[in-house]
Amino acid sequence: ATPFTPATGQVDLAVIPGDGIGPEVTAEALKVLEVAAPDELKFARTQYDLGAENYLRTGEVLPPSVLAEIKGQDAILLGAVGGKPNDPNLPPGILERGLLLKLRFELDHYVNLRPSRLYPGSTSPLSDAVLGKGEVDFVVVREGTEGPYTGNGGALRVGTPAEVATEVSVNTAYGVERVIRDAFERASKRPRKKLTLVHKTNVLVHAGQVWWRLFEKVAAEYPDVTTDYSHIDAVMIYLTTDPQRFDVIVTDNLFGDIVTDLAAAITGGIGLAASGNVNPDRTYPSMFEPVHGSAPDIAGQLIADPTAAILSGALLLDHLGHPEAAARIEAAVLADLEARTPGQQRRTPEVGDAIAARVAG
Amino acid sequence: ATPFTPATGQVDLAVIPGDGIGPEVTAEALKVLEVAAPDELKFARTQYDLGAENYLRTGEVLPPSVLAEIKGQDAILLGAVGGKPNDPNLPPGILERGLLLKLRFELDHYVNLRPSRLYPGSTSPLSDAVLGKGEVDFVVVREGTEGPYTGNGGALRVGTPAEVATEVSVNTAYGVERVIRDAFERASKRPRKKLTLVHKTNVLVHAGQVWWRLFEKVAAEYPDVTTDYSHIDAVMIYLTTDPQRFDVIVTDNLFGDIVTDLAAAITGGIGLAASGNVNPDRTYPSMFEPVHGSAPDIAGQLIADPTAAILSGALLLDHLGHPEAAARIEAAVLADLEARTPGQQRRTPEVGDAIAARVAG
Ligand SMILES: CC(C)[C@H](C(=O)O)[C@@H](O)C(=O)O
Ligand SMILES: CC(C)[C@H](C(=O)O)[C@@H](O)C(=O)O
Repeated sequence: ATPFTPATGQVDLAVIPGDGIGPEVTAEALKVLEVAAPDELKFARTQYDLGAENYLRTGEVLPPSVLAEIKGQDAILLGAVGGKPNDPNLPPGILERGLLLKLRFELDHYVNLRPSRLYPGSTSPLSDAVLGKGEVDFVVVREGTEGPYTGNGGALRVGTPAEVATEVSVNTAYGVERVIRDAFERASKRPRKKLTLVHKTNVLVHAGQVWWRLFEKVAAEYPDVTTDYSHIDAVMIYLTTDPQRFDVIVTDNLFGDIVTDLAAAITGGIGLAASGNVNPDRTYPSMFEPVHGSAPDIAGQLIADPTAAILSGALLLDHLGHPEAAARIEAAVLADLEARTPGQQRRTPEVGDAIAARVAG
Repeated sequence: ATPFTPATGQVDLAVIPGDGIGPEVTAEALKVLEVAAPDELKFARTQYDLGAENYLRTGEVLPPSVLAEIKGQDAILLGAVGGKPNDPNLPPGILERGLLLKLRFELDHYVNLRPSRLYPGSTSPLSDAVLGKGEVDFVVVREGTEGPYTGNGGALRVGTPAEVATEVSVNTAYGVERVIRDAFERASKRPRKKLTLVHKTNVLVHAGQVWWRLFEKVAAEYPDVTTDYSHIDAVMIYLTTDPQRFDVIVTDNLFGDIVTDLAAAITGGIGLAASGNVNPDRTYPSMFEPVHGSAPDIAGQLIADPTAAILSGALLLDHLGHPEAAARIEAAVLADLEARTPGQQRRTPEVGDAIAARVAG
């Protein structure tokens, strides 16, 4: 069933609920997805039990046969994976590298997409003086398949005083140009049409040069997009004192990891942040997931907020060619957020029901 | 005159005023330094005209003979270097790599020290809800001589679609252990005695392992220091929502660059942030500088705030073995900040005079 063509109507959807609150929020995302999707769109779901629990049970993280099956799907919805903190049976990083990053690399998710909006009613840690300057609404386009995330590098004389360990950031014209192109395309479709390259070109000169050169090259093809550049350290200051300046940000894998968490923090926390690991060429399915983790401490109580998972469903619909359906979910979430009162405690399915009802009605 | 021994009384001080507001704030830092230093301490100053202006005039960034001379000094006070933005005669990164980083590497400044305090009266972009949780007062100990800052790496097939550029982060047991040791030493002397390692060990496994292992090893020697660990992305969230949790942070060169700018931002901006590039072994002089830049747009008007430069002078005195004198400057700055009224406009020398008077009196 690859690649997905909207015309066929059937979407083969891989669902990876994951661990902890993952399954709880995924259920709500699916609920809203079904209501929001146009009638002609039918989801044929296959559930994949992957994550910490599955690893502890089977000793496997992502068997090759499962990966092959997932590659044949049209899209992936993921909840959250991760076990209890410091579980001695769960080697550190095993799920990150064996599952999350593995999927990004294997499925060529070169665009890691993270919209950042300060929704009404959500609590930003920023002061009113900063927030009063205007609306915060930007998107980070993070490269997802290279940079410092390749695992290249190694260590010599481990455990001795002469030990040396290297990490190699790999930046190819192939990989850099395609994500920059995607970012320009997205920027050109937004009202403000502004794109900021974020890097550290004054220090990381080798990588910096290829990013800079290709940014300038593609910029020439988008004369209507305003461009600028910020060092990653300066972005720390801008995001906390003047987040309104950003519209679309394009950056490398590691800087993107850092910037998106700060972006999520200032717009009210990762509780509301959705993300897409997108393969714009559609050679493999794209994956959509909330930014938050599996929160084992509150799992099973049905008190997790499913909003980020629901918004990830909107990104999924948009990617599948249904921007109106995506917009309906966004609007419903917005209305739900506006209607929330401080101290109000709703259970996970109640939030999903409320948003689904708004989408339907 | 190397290494400096407090007993001798004379400090050979290299002064690099730099560009833009650099000379203006340096003059005030020196003014306060002279007043604060104990009588037996005599500064023998040598001024070095280095920076953008000097480069544009002479074509040289840091001649070997000047570097050799500086190596023989006891300490360095730097204002700020940097020319007008986008000056076509100033190749991007030339001062950063040829002067600032060159000095850090040549003088083995392996501890880049950045205290972060929310001074009363300074404007944080964080909300009252976050700031109300308690006092913000932490120090970042950033590694300064290796990691992704080595310049290792290169590019192949530049300008073609097959281009590949690499950046190599180099992490040695030698380099990592000594900065971790320094951080534990500093943490053990603070009231809260808490040290947080910041890295991205789940992705950067090669470097992560050496940092992690040596952190645990040295921790065993400091049983009174509480330790914890945060991924760099999580630090973005903590610093904006719960900065009070940090006491001392130790981290690598690039993560440190990022964390310290965020730390400066949340504590009222880089206008107040001081830093030390410290060689704890005293094989070469350490360098102290405000974190802010040369601000060419306001240069020459004497409206720059010299507080960060003055606080850098306090770090210098502390490093030279005069913590009481350093504390006097800190207290005077604190009092000055508390006495400031919103909208008050003082000229650069007025601020220096006011703080110097408080130190004296
Ligand atoms: C879990 C981890 C590997 C991942 C990353 O570093 O990309 C996460 O932080 C994210 O941002 O999706
Ligand atoms: C100017 C630049 C090379 C430097 C750095 O990246 O270290 C600066 O940002 C700093 O933090 O001192």
